[in-house]
Amino acid sequence: MKKVSGPYKDCSEDNRICVPDTPLPRVVVVGGGFAGLSFIKQLKNKRVQLVLIDRSNHHQFLPLLYQVATSGIEPDSIVFPYRKLFRKYRNLVYRMAEVLNINTEQNRVETNIGTVDYDYLVLATGSKTNFFGNESIARNGIGLKSVTDALDIRSHLLQNLEKAAVTCREDEKKALGSVVIVGGGPAGVEMAGALAEFKKYILPKDYPELRQTDIKIYLVEAIGKLLQDMPETLSAKTISYLQKMDVEVLLNTTVAGYDGETVKLIGTDFIHASALIWTAGIKGKVPAGLEKGLFNRQKRIKVDRLNKVEGCGNIFVIGDLALMETKDYPGGHPMVAQAAIQQGKKLAENLLAILNNKDVADFEYKDKGSMATIGKKKAVARLKNLKFSGFPAWIIWSFIHLMSIIGVRNKFIIALNWMWSYFTYDKGDRVIIRRYEQETEK
Amino acid sequence: MKKVSGPYKDCSEDNRICVPDTPLPRVVVVGGGFAGLSFIKQLKNKRVQLVLIDRSNHHQFLPLLYQVATSGIEPDSIVFPYRKLFRKYRNLVYRMAEVLNINTEQNRVETNIGTVDYDYLVLATGSKTNFFGNESIARNGIGLKSVTDALDIRSHLLQNLEKAAVTCREDEKKALGSVVIVGGGPAGVEMAGALAEFKKYILPKDYPELRQTDIKIYLVEAIGKLLQDMPETLSAKTISYLQKMDVEVLLNTTVAGYDGETVKLIGTDFIHASALIWTAGIKGKVPAGLEKGLFNRQKRIKVDRLNKVEGCGNIFVIGDLALMETKDYPGGHPMVAQAAIQQGKKLAENLLAILNNKDVADFEYKDKGSMATIGKKKAVARLKNLKFSGFPAWIIWSFIHLMSIIGVRNKFIIALNWMWSYFTYDKGDRVIIRRYEQETEK
Repeated sequence: MKKVSGPYKDCSEDNRICVPDTPLPRVVVVGGGFAGLSFIKQLKNKRVQLVLIDRSNHHQFLPLLYQVATSGIEPDSIVFPYRKLFRKYRNLVYRMAEVLNINTEQNRVETNIGTVDYDYLVLATGSKTNFFGNESIARNGIGLKSVTDALDIRSHLLQNLEKAAVTCREDEKKALGSVVIVGGGPAGVEMAGALAEFKKYILPKDYPELRQTDIKIYLVEAIGKLLQDMPETLSAKTISYLQKMDVEVLLNTTVAGYDGETVKLIGTDFIHASALIWTAGIKGKVPAGLEKGLFNRQKRIKVDRLNKVEGCGNIFVIGDLALMETKDYPGGHPMVAQAAIQQGKKLAENLLAILNNKDVADFEYKDKGSMATIGKKKAVARLKNLKFSGFPAWIIWSFIHLMSIIGVRNKFIIALNWMWSYFTYDKGDRVIIRRYEQETEK
Repeated sequence: MKKVSGPYKDCSEDNRICVPDTPLPRVVVVGGGFAGLSFIKQLKNKRVQLVLIDRSNHHQFLPLLYQVATSGIEPDSIVFPYRKLFRKYRNLVYRMAEVLNINTEQNRVETNIGTVDYDYLVLATGSKTNFFGNESIARNGIGLKSVTDALDIRSHLLQNLEKAAVTCREDEKKALGSVVIVGGGPAGVEMAGALAEFKKYILPKDYPELRQTDIKIYLVEAIGKLLQDMPETLSAKTISYLQKMDVEVLLNTTVAGYDGETVKLIGTDFIHASALIWTAGIKGKVPAGLEKGLFNRQKRIKVDRLNKVEGCGNIFVIGDLALMETKDYPGGHPMVAQAAIQQGKKLAENLLAILNNKDVADFEYKDKGSMATIGKKKAVARLKNLKFSGFPAWIIWSFIHLMSIIGVRNKFIIALNWMWSYFTYDKGDRVIIRRYEQETEK
């Protein structure tokens, strides 16, 4: 990455970020993921000034990361630039910046490009991969929480296949052809399904040097069930779908370490594999400068039923980063898009109520369901109390995801890619667009 | 990039790359650009064994790089994976590898994954950016010769705009908003046109903080003419198109250095600009291990009229890397796609002739013309002796490029993007998908 040399300098004496002056109350929102976006949308052109701070210049639609990682769609089609998104928002400014410190005394956010004062602060920075302190896995495994992660996985897997294709040492070929996915939630299941498809449809055509048995996909889950949120029948169905696609599902199995070649399981077992994809945990992405006492071990910040941080009158947290303990969810809400979207919307309503001296209302999570797709034409879905599986679930999954993606152009391109894959059994994006190993080593 | 640890090992005692044994003569082709591909296509399932060696796993369609760099199309749609491309080639194996040495005594190519012996060797590695030894430009400028270059430019320009949007210091804003493109060939002209469009259509909507005058696009050319290959009328038209789009065209101007902030021109002039895109020169990408005497100052390898390297009976060079001096082209053919494609095809025909003891024929370059697009709906094109400009030229340009892109899916996606841009005046891919500055600094 080329850089403008020299530090960024602001015009004002005291290093403020340029934000228009206005008599309206200023709400600084950190992070434009599902939670932040849902909050902002609700306040479009309302009588508050919104300042969105994010280090990325775009919103990422994380539920389809696994398709980028497995060469199904291109990265550009699951992201959307903020500036385009907010063109018609007369009350919003976007600033690409990284938060360095939050000064709660002075109601000030300090960033790498200067400071900005707030009347209200909304933290919606989301979550990142949690390796639970296991350094060997953090170093040698790859998470799946951003587009760059997904491209790293795509690159890594394709390079491994190239190496597997040319080695004649059987043990090496097996290790290069093995992928261990850790975590049996939707991300892990969808990843496993997509890789199984790759193995079934792409491998025989593209890699005549490899046999089906050279490629092995493992899905490792610590508890006794896949898709914890799902009813037992759908979890069982998921396992049977995956097994039919030749994915080795290992339940009640915990990964102890990974040196880049061998996955050590707790006990004496191990798997030789040149790739480990870690979807087994996430933790809050706490902005720098917040007191340690504010967040728990999973780095989530404790909030009340209005998403307000305890002890702070004007700081709110929404989405994965928020820990709201309720009777139904004593450990906080699930760290999923639905909870983030609902919290964002509710907080916007409550904030407007506060500003207009009206009544506020507690946040109530409505579990709309959950779903996961397992390769082509198969999925499991729970919508409220209805259960779907197989083709109908896959149609529901496809429709909901396509509608949720931001941007008409993105929808078109993804739909085109999906139809293409549907009819040709092909995945078009199996290209390594990274600086190559050799290059980075120099 | 995650890596498989440990060195790659091959099965055989003597570190050979696994390539099937065959009684057919083996032709090792290094590089799958326009020249390599055209050569290979001609030999599909003919009685030679083809071994393609490339460090990339895909062919890149370089003429559209500038659209990736200016957020017009996504990188995945201008590349095509080799393995998919060559599925039906029973006589070809692809090996992802980097050439380390060429042992002409033993007819052996040494790569980072092992060695491979050849009966015939075809070098088609193409060219890379030539900074002519100017280290300050090489360090602080960005070339435009690969998809990663294009993504670097996209990232850099978008980050500069974000910085320009928040600074109130006028001089800094101007520098951040200035882009200097060096080189008035098609790449430079097309880049300038696309950036001018970005400025005209995207900027006012996306960056309300910036005025049109904050953004300045310079196109700097050392000689007195843009598009050297074009007739004078079309070159003049190109300048007038660019000037109408508010591009500052500086002819007879040479860049002396660039420190990341100030472009020094020869003489006393300078331009403050935070981005310099260098399209002013290319040089042959000579594979490691070739004798110095074989190539000239521009790193092109001298070949005879059969594209054979002088003094070597079985090594051929095609494309940008080849320097074939003829009466019509005493300095070698232009380093363009057309010459590469024609040489690849001719060499394949000649090689078949050699193998079948038939007559070979000298290569003759047929200049089919050249063209460049300048923003939306405007282009200049010379097809043989016919001249086109304006909308007709733009239609010809679009059609020829779309037809030349490999892959039905890519054609669809690019056509969709173009139609989208055409009707909405939008460029959809203005997203920074790179590790961010802040991140790389840590």
